[in-house]
Parts: sequence; structure tokens; C-alpha cells
Amino acid sequence: MLTEAQDQRRDSATMRLSRIGQKMSGMSGLRTIMEDIAASTAAGSSNWLNLSVGNPALIDEVVDTWRELTVQAATADFTATSSRYGPSRGLPALVDAIVDHFNTSYGWDITADNVVVGPGSQMLCFMAAALFTGSTGTEQPQRLVLPMTPDYAGYQGLSLDRDGVIGFTPRVLLSGDRSFHYAFDFDALDQCREAGMFLLSSPSNPTGRSVDGDELARLLSAARQRDVPLFVDHAYGEPFPRIAASRVAPQQDDYLINCFTLSKAGLPAERIGFAIGPDRYIRPMVSFMANSALHAPQLMQLVAARSLTTGALEKLASSVIAPFYQARRRSVERLLAELLPASVNWRLHTSEGGMFCWLWVDEPWFDDMALYELMKTKKVFIVPGRHFFVPPSADAALNSHGTRCFRISLSADEGTIGEGIARIAEGLTQLSRAHHA
Amino acid sequence: MLTEAQDQRRDSATMRLSRIGQKMSGMSGLRTIMEDIAASTAAGSSNWLNLSVGNPALIDEVVDTWRELTVQAATADFTATSSRYGPSRGLPALVDAIVDHFNTSYGWDITADNVVVGPGSQMLCFMAAALFTGSTGTEQPQRLVLPMTPDYAGYQGLSLDRDGVIGFTPRVLLSGDRSFHYAFDFDALDQCREAGMFLLSSPSNPTGRSVDGDELARLLSAARQRDVPLFVDHAYGEPFPRIAASRVAPQQDDYLINCFTLSKAGLPAERIGFAIGPDRYIRPMVSFMANSALHAPQLMQLVAARSLTTGALEKLASSVIAPFYQARRRSVERLLAELLPASVNWRLHTSEGGMFCWLWVDEPWFDDMALYELMKTKKVFIVPGRHFFVPPSADAALNSHGTRCFRISLSADEGTIGEGIARIAEGLTQLSRAHHA
Repeated sequence: MLTEAQDQRRDSATMRLSRIGQKMSGMSGLRTIMEDIAASTAAGSSNWLNLSVGNPALIDEVVDTWRELTVQAATADFTATSSRYGPSRGLPALVDAIVDHFNTSYGWDITADNVVVGPGSQMLCFMAAALFTGSTGTEQPQRLVLPMTPDYAGYQGLSLDRDGVIGFTPRVLLSGDRSFHYAFDFDALDQCREAGMFLLSSPSNPTGRSVDGDELARLLSAARQRDVPLFVDHAYGEPFPRIAASRVAPQQDDYLINCFTLSKAGLPAERIGFAIGPDRYIRPMVSFMANSALHAPQLMQLVAARSLTTGALEKLASSVIAPFYQARRRSVERLLAELLPASVNWRLHTSEGGMFCWLWVDEPWFDDMALYELMKTKKVFIVPGRHFFVPPSADAALNSHGTRCFRISLSADEGTIGEGIARIAEGLTQLSRAHHA
Repeated sequence: MLTEAQDQRRDSATMRLSRIGQKMSGMSGLRTIMEDIAASTAAGSSNWLNLSVGNPALIDEVVDTWRELTVQAATADFTATSSRYGPSRGLPALVDAIVDHFNTSYGWDITADNVVVGPGSQMLCFMAAALFTGSTGTEQPQRLVLPMTPDYAGYQGLSLDRDGVIGFTPRVLLSGDRSFHYAFDFDALDQCREAGMFLLSSPSNPTGRSVDGDELARLLSAARQRDVPLFVDHAYGEPFPRIAASRVAPQQDDYLINCFTLSKAGLPAERIGFAIGPDRYIRPMVSFMANSALHAPQLMQLVAARSLTTGALEKLASSVIAPFYQARRRSVERLLAELLPASVNWRLHTSEGGMFCWLWVDEPWFDDMALYELMKTKKVFIVPGRHFFVPPSADAALNSHGTRCFRISLSADEGTIGEGIARIAEGLTQLSRAHHA
């Protein structure tokens, strides 16, 4: 009989995970966040102040709209929606609604061939990364390239290859006493010889930063030169949910895959996202879907279709969600200015709206993991900045800038945020004093 | 400006798909079926008789039960269910319901650590194949091994590697004038040196065949000797949907991953499946989920939880679905005996219930693709047998047995099946006469 220790050794030592399995069973930064969510929401831990999560704010009008659309869809024609398998590209009613919406709103000329619906936009990113990056068998492995880090921590888990994701260090531009923002390092990006796909969130998680038209054109030029896709994740932007402002409308381009999701518009747990792009990129994504998840769940695809055709989604985004986050952002900016210690050199990344504040504590004594651990003792969850950087930018950033940033969410209720920021202020004061003592 | 032909060349020649991308963008047998479904259900093609698909039968009581549970779940606590991200393992209410159900029904001692819910059982199979098969970096690639072909055509699309799936040729045993059944070739299986995971459907798609206790023990012994998991897909069996009879109840074993789905119990389009197995196999599957699809859609997870805790699902399976398919199977067996040409040596794989009939036309002139093409001219979809075989069994089988089989579904309405079988009888007579002319 095996002892427990031997048993554990057998588990980890002799169980043969494939190379891909070793990578995909690892703990990404995102996974750490998920484990924290689980811990904080577990029974008996209701007194946690969770400023770490990516859940959208619970806004009554948003919840009510989705609930009504869902009940209507379930009672409409359940047989057609839920009792029969559907096409891997997506429910035709949704695909058609997407085509109409984007052609009408932006003057595009897309057809159903340019659309694929998936069980969440992260799964769509995952499929694109598996299709367009990695070993081609004939040349150097092509990597998933994040043109600017920090970017969404979940991107690190997307590649099936160890070291499959690389990211570039941004330029840091100061503005005023308490603000800063990042700029692309296009010179470094132009040297990149190993891109299979470029990927970015815009508006960005964690900073709320949106690319502008010139930047998008330069990124597209980099993609075109290398004959690889640029994948832009609009999870926070235009046309929905408009949590943060987009500085340029979504564009149609022969090298561009645009990805949209209902998650931040109020349906995070229902996992509906879709990608729009050239047929030559979308077609293999549809095949990958047929071979893996088969198709996205259909009842919520019908809900999504109706939210588009009735205009309910656009109305929520413009009239409810955008104003909510603009006001929330301003109120949190005031709280930070009021509560964070004046003696500490902290700065906030500029953003109009957005679901997060991205803070940089430009002090030699500051370490994001030290703050994270300290805040846990104060029952507050924040996200350490380093999780949003990947090599090679991580290597440089982790010695300086990247370890001096952290992210807080704006989607909790105002009481939680206010108390959370007050405790973060306490924490910063403590860390600063410990250094100066 | 490029001509259309040049444009296509550019698409296929210069777009760099990764090695995995080349594999996953390919057309599996399943994909062919999906394309056929799309063609047959497209506008203006309503006169197709579709005996190819894997949709469960539309039974009023089944549809009504799921619709009611869905409306109840949507009106219960939409905020908790759909407005917040959930754990990658699954909605705790569903995970708990699964643990209780299997411990109570089968005397198991599983905990939440042994369960992972996914967006469909095919996605769970896909993740397991990616984790447990393929290159380990230090030894020969481990393959996904189907201990007996024919088996579900979708399994061929699961491996990220070209040639990643292999399957064994069954022994063919005759019984009576019109029946036959397959047996495992355990001697061949024992020689297999390249298994990373064994996978089978039981009861099987396409044959309806269920493993018995002795066979399961031998398969588990093969898995244990190689220290690899045996993944059993119960999509048609016990405890639900009971479309076909299981000859042995689901077992708990340290080398066994059991996979279950709501698809054939009436919710194919909502993509809810779950796997139960040892923690050391389930844990990396949960991580893979966090890194890819994040989690299964939650509203339908709540529906699934309630279908278990209220007993509604077990009642549907035992009182409605099982009797429906038993009766349907008997009636189709009568139709086949009555309508298929007596002069042709055709045989039906034995099965108690089941969603398909698997027919073998043991005639030198018969070719499954020829029948498939001929039946399309008669507006009937069947599935050619060869799609259910993989190398090396396919190589042997395709010269004889595998190209002489085809599958028809029992889940269409009786009128469609009756007319479809009448046209198949016509087709067989035509093919036979053409040979003897």
C-alpha cells in the first residue's frame, strides 16, 4: 500500500501529461485570480472585499433586460433552439443579426462567411492561437505576440506551447502629478521575427487604454508584412458594452480578426462571444469549433440575436453601461486622490471609463506581491501587476515597472470599493513606513 | 489585382497554419455530417429525409420538461447564475448534485474533486486527448486509442496531432440470418505500445453495443498496465439518457474517467457534459478549462442541477426515453426485415434500444460511398460506415468490412424513417442489379 506521499509522487511523477498537457494544466495568472474568487466567495468568507475580479457591475436594468430576453427565448421555440444540434459557425439567427448590425453600424460588407460564434471570446482566442501560432513543422515556431503589455492575464494561458506567448514593454509617459499612460514601442515590434498572430485587448484590460486609428494602422501594417492576423479583443469597447471609450471604431481589414463578447455587457457566465474576420481566418476557426466544442450553446445565442435585432443591447451599452462606468470611474478617481497617501508617488493610468484602475507606485520600496499579501491580511483582493506582463517584457518589467503596478476593479458596489481603497491606503502607508523605518 | 484563382492560392499556400492548425482545420467525418445537416436544413430543402444525424428524437414530454426547468432557472436568481463568472470546475450546485447522485445510485465515494463540468462532452474528450496524448517531449508520441472501431466519428477530430488517433479492428460474430455483433480483439490491444489514453463510447455510437463487466475489467487492466486513463463516454447509456441498455453500471476506478452528457437526454444544443474520475486526471482538465473556455454556461448548469435533484432527469430517462427507443428500435427492425431486399445479404448489429441502426451489407459489390451518393439522389442522408473507422483498423477495414456498413438514425419521425428505409431498399436493389446486370 502506498503512503500518501508516495501516492502524490506517483501522481506527479509517473502520470504522463503530454507537452501540451504540461502547459495547459499549469496555473496562469488568470487561474490564480479564479482560485482567489473561489476562496473569497466560499461559505463563511463573505467579509472579503474583492477588488480583483473581472465581473461586470450588477446593474438592475442590465440584469432585468437579460433575464426577460432569456425567459422569452426559452418560451419561444425551445425545440428549434435547444433540442437539436446547431451549426458550428453559430445559430443562423445570430450570425445574420451580427452581419446586419456591423454592416449597418459601420458600413462593412461582411457576410455569414466572416462570422464565427463561440462559447466565450476566450475560447475563440484559444482556437485562433492554436491555429495560427506554434510549430508549422517547416520553420521556427510562430508565437502569440502581445504588442503591448500589460494586457489581459488570460492571454498567457492560450498558447499550447511553453514560451508560446511573448509581449513587448510599453513606453511610459507621465502626465500631471498622478497620471501616466503607455505608448506602443513600434521600433521594438518592427524587429519581431516570430509572430504567428498579434493579440491585444482594446480598450485594454487592465489599463482601459484604447488604440487610436494611427496605432491600429501600424499594427495592421505589421500584421500584413508578416502575413499573420491581428486579433483585437473588444471585450470592453464599442459597439458594446462601451465600458471604456474606444478611440477608433472597429475596422474591417483583410488582416484583422475582431472579437466581441456579451460577458461584460452582463452575461459573463453564459459564455457567448463571436469573431468577425476574413473568411480565410474564420473558416479554420469554424472547423476547430466542430472538432472541439461543436458549437456555442444555442438558447443564449438566440438571446444574443434578439438583443441585437431589438436594439436592446445597443441601448443598454449607450444609455446604461457607458454612463455607469464613466461616473464610477470619476468617483473612484476622487476616492484615490482623497485616500491614498500623498507622500507616496502613485500614478493612475488615464482612461475614459473602464472596468479597472491600473495603479503604478513609482517607489523603490514597492513590490506588487508584497502589497497583494499584505492586502490579503486586510481581507482585500487586488491583482499584482506582474501577472499582466509576459516575456521578454516581463523580464525587464519585473525588475522595475511591472512589479510596481496593481489592478483594482470598479465593478464592486461603491461601499466595497470605498472601504477597499481605504485599506489599500493603509497598506501603502505601512509599506512605506516599513521602508523608511 | 489578384484573380480569384490567385487569391485562393494565396489563402491556402501562404497562410501559415500551425501543425495543429492544419490538423484542426481539417474535415473530420463528423464535419461532413455537420455540413450535410446544414445542407438538408437549409431553406428550400425541407423535403430531405435525414437519417444521418445524431439529434435525439423530439419527444414532447422531454422538450416540455427541459423548457419548464429552463424558465424556472432563468426566473430563479439570474444574478447569481448568469451575471457573474463561475468556477471552471462547474457550478457548485451542479457539482454537488452530481456527487450526490452517483454516490447514492452506485455507492461511490466521490467528492467535488472528482468532477469537472464542460461545455459539452466532446469538449471534455478534446481536453483529455490534448492533456494525455501527443508528444511528451521525452518519449514516442502517445496516441488516442479506440479499443474497438467502429466508434463515434467525432473522436477522429479530437487529437491535435495528425495520425494521433488509432483504432482496432473488431472481431465480427454472426448470429442468425440477419444479425451480427462485434467483439474486442484484446490480443491485438495487448500489443499496443503507444497508448496515451483509451477512449470508447458505451453504449456505442454507431452500433449501440455496450461493454460488459468482463470487457471493462480487461480494458481497465490494459489502462493500468500502461498507467494511462480509460475514458468511457456514456452519452447513450446509464444513468441517463438510457437510449441504449448498458450491460454494466458505470464503475469507479483509479484509471477510469466516466463522461456523461445531457445532449441525448434532450438538450443537445445547450452543450452540458461532465466527467467523473480520479483527482489526478480531473485536476488538469479543470486547468485546461480555465485556460480555454473558462467554464460551461451556467444557466444550463443550474437546469442540469435541478434535473438531478428533483429526479426529473432520471424519470425522463427511465419512464420516457428508454421505452421510446426500445419500441422505436423494434419497429425499425420490423421495417428493415420487411422492406430491405431479401436477396441481399444484409445484417444488423444487435442492440437493445439505441439511437442508430448499424447495417452491414456483406456483398462484394457493396460500397458505402456508392450507397451514400445514390441515396443523396433519392433525397435521403445516411452515414457511410468508413467514417467510423480509423487507422490502422481503417486500412484493413476499408478493403472489406468498413466500406460495407452504413448507419441510419432512429430519432427522426416514423414517417421519415419508414419512407427513408423504403428508399434505401430501392437503392440496395439498384446497386445489386447494376452488379448482376
